[in-house]
Amino acid sequence: MFISFEGIDGSGKSTQAKRLARALAQRGIEIVLTREPGGSPGAEEIRRLLVEGGSERWSPETELLLFTAARRDHLERLIRPALARGAWVVTDRFADSTRVYQGAARGEQRALVEELHRLMIGLDPDLTFVIDIAPEVSLQRGQARGSPEDRFEGMGLDFQHRLRDGFRALARAEPQRIRLIDGSGSEDEVAARVLAGLP
Amino acid sequence: MFISFEGIDGSGKSTQAKRLARALAQRGIEIVLTREPGGSPGAEEIRRLLVEGGSERWSPETELLLFTAARRDHLERLIRPALARGAWVVTDRFADSTRVYQGAARGEQRALVEELHRLMIGLDPDLTFVIDIAPEVSLQRGQARGSPEDRFEGMGLDFQHRLRDGFRALARAEPQRIRLIDGSGSEDEVAARVLAGLP
Ligand SMILES: Nc1ncnc2c1ncn2[C@@H]1O[C@H](COP(=O)(O)OP(=O)(O)O)[C@@H](O)[C@H]1O
Ligand SMILES: Nc1ncnc2c1ncn2[C@@H]1O[C@H](COP(=O)(O)OP(=O)(O)O)[C@@H](O)[C@H]1O
Ligand SMILES: [Mg+2]
Ligand SMILES: [Mg+2]
Repeated sequence: MFISFEGIDGSGKSTQAKRLARALAQRGIEIVLTREPGGSPGAEEIRRLLVEGGSERWSPETELLLFTAARRDHLERLIRPALARGAWVVTDRFADSTRVYQGAARGEQRALVEELHRLMIGLDPDLTFVIDIAPEVSLQRGQARGSPEDRFEGMGLDFQHRLRDGFRALARAEPQRIRLIDGSGSEDEVAARVLAGLP
Repeated sequence: MFISFEGIDGSGKSTQAKRLARALAQRGIEIVLTREPGGSPGAEEIRRLLVEGGSERWSPETELLLFTAARRDHLERLIRPALARGAWVVTDRFADSTRVYQGAARGEQRALVEELHRLMIGLDPDLTFVIDIAPEVSLQRGQARGSPEDRFEGMGLDFQHRLRDGFRALARAEPQRIRLIDGSGSEDEVAARVLAGLP
C-alpha cells in the first residue's frame, strides 16, 4: 500500500506521516517513510535546487520539470522497490503537491502538469491524506519552526490560500483516493482522524 | 538566427562554435555564444548534476527530465531574450544532443524525447552543424583534454558509435536544418567547411 500526506506548509504532514508510520509498524507491517521533494539520494540533490533560493529562481515550467525529475528518481529507486517487496510506503508529499503548487496555484499549467505526470510518473498513491488547515495557523507553526528551506513559504499568505483551495478541490475531485482531514486541534486529535481514515 | 553545433564528445563542437561566433562578430552581428547543458545560471547548476558522477547515477528517464529542465531555463533566460533583441545565438549543443544521447543511443525512448521536447521546449535552431568524426579520433582528442566532466565519455566506444550513427540519422532526416560537416583534418579546414555551410 502506497500512502501520501499532502497539504500546505506547516499543516502537520511530517508530524502525521511519522505518527502513522509508527502506528502501522506496530501492526507488524514493514514501513518505508519518505518525503518529497527528495527521498532518494539523487532526488535529495535536486531538492536543494528547488527549496533554496528566491521565489523567482525558476520559472513555473522549469520548476515542474525539476520536481518531476526528482519524483522519477524517488519512484524508481525507493518507492517501487519497496512496494515490490511488500512494504508499505508512507510519503510526506507526492504528485498532488505538484498538481497544486505547480498546477493550480502558480500560473495556469494544470494540463501540462497532468500530461507530464502521465508521461513520466504514471502512478498515484492508493490513499492520500490532505491535512486541511487555515494558512494563518500553519504559517505560525512554520515560523515557529524557522527553516532555511523557505522558498515556497516566502510566497505569501494569498498564495497559501490558493494552495489550500487547490488541495480541497483535489479532494472533492477524487473522493475514492483522497481523505480530507481536519488539521486543527492537537497532534493526537489529528492522528486519531488519520487512523479513522484508513480502510 | 539560432545556430547549434552538435556531435559526439571531442568532435570539435566547442572549437568550431567559438570560431564561427568570432567570424560572425567580425561581420558586425551581435553574437551570444553559449552551451548546453548549462548556458544560464540555473541550467549550469543542473549541469553539475548531469555531467559528474557515475554512468548509473540517473536512469535514462530522470536524465531526460534534468536535461529538459536545464534547457527550459537556458531558453527562457538566455536564448529567447537574445533572439528577441536581434542577436544571433550560437550554442554548443541543444535538443539534438538529447534526441541522440537520451533518445537513440540509450534505451528506446525516442517517442518520449520528442513528446517532452514538444511539451516543454518547442523550439529548434534555424541551422545546426553536426561535426562528424570517427569516435576513435574524438576519444583521443577528449583524453588529451582530461576533464572531470566525463560521465558520458565513460560509457565506452560502442556507445560513441551509436551516438555518431544517431547524429548522422538526424542529419539525413532533417536536411533543411542540419548540415553534416566532415570533422577530420585541421581546425582551419573544419572551420572553412562550417562557413561554407552558412546560408
Ligand atoms: N496539531 C498540531 N498542533 C500544533 N502544532 C503542530 C501540530 N502538528 C504539527 N505541529 C507543529 O507545527 C509545525 C509544522 O508541522 P509539520 O508536521 O512539520 O508540518 P508540515 O510537514 O505540513 O510542514 C511543527 O513545528 C510541528 O511540531
Ligand atoms: N580539427 C581538429 N584537429 C585536432 N584537434 C582538434 C580539432 N578540433 C578540436 N580539436 C581538439 O580536440 C579536443 C576536443 O575539441 P572540442 O572542440 O572541445 O570538442 P567538443 O566540444 O566537440 O567536445 C580539444 O582539445 C580541441 O583543441
Ligand atoms: Mg514537513
Ligand atoms: Mg565541448
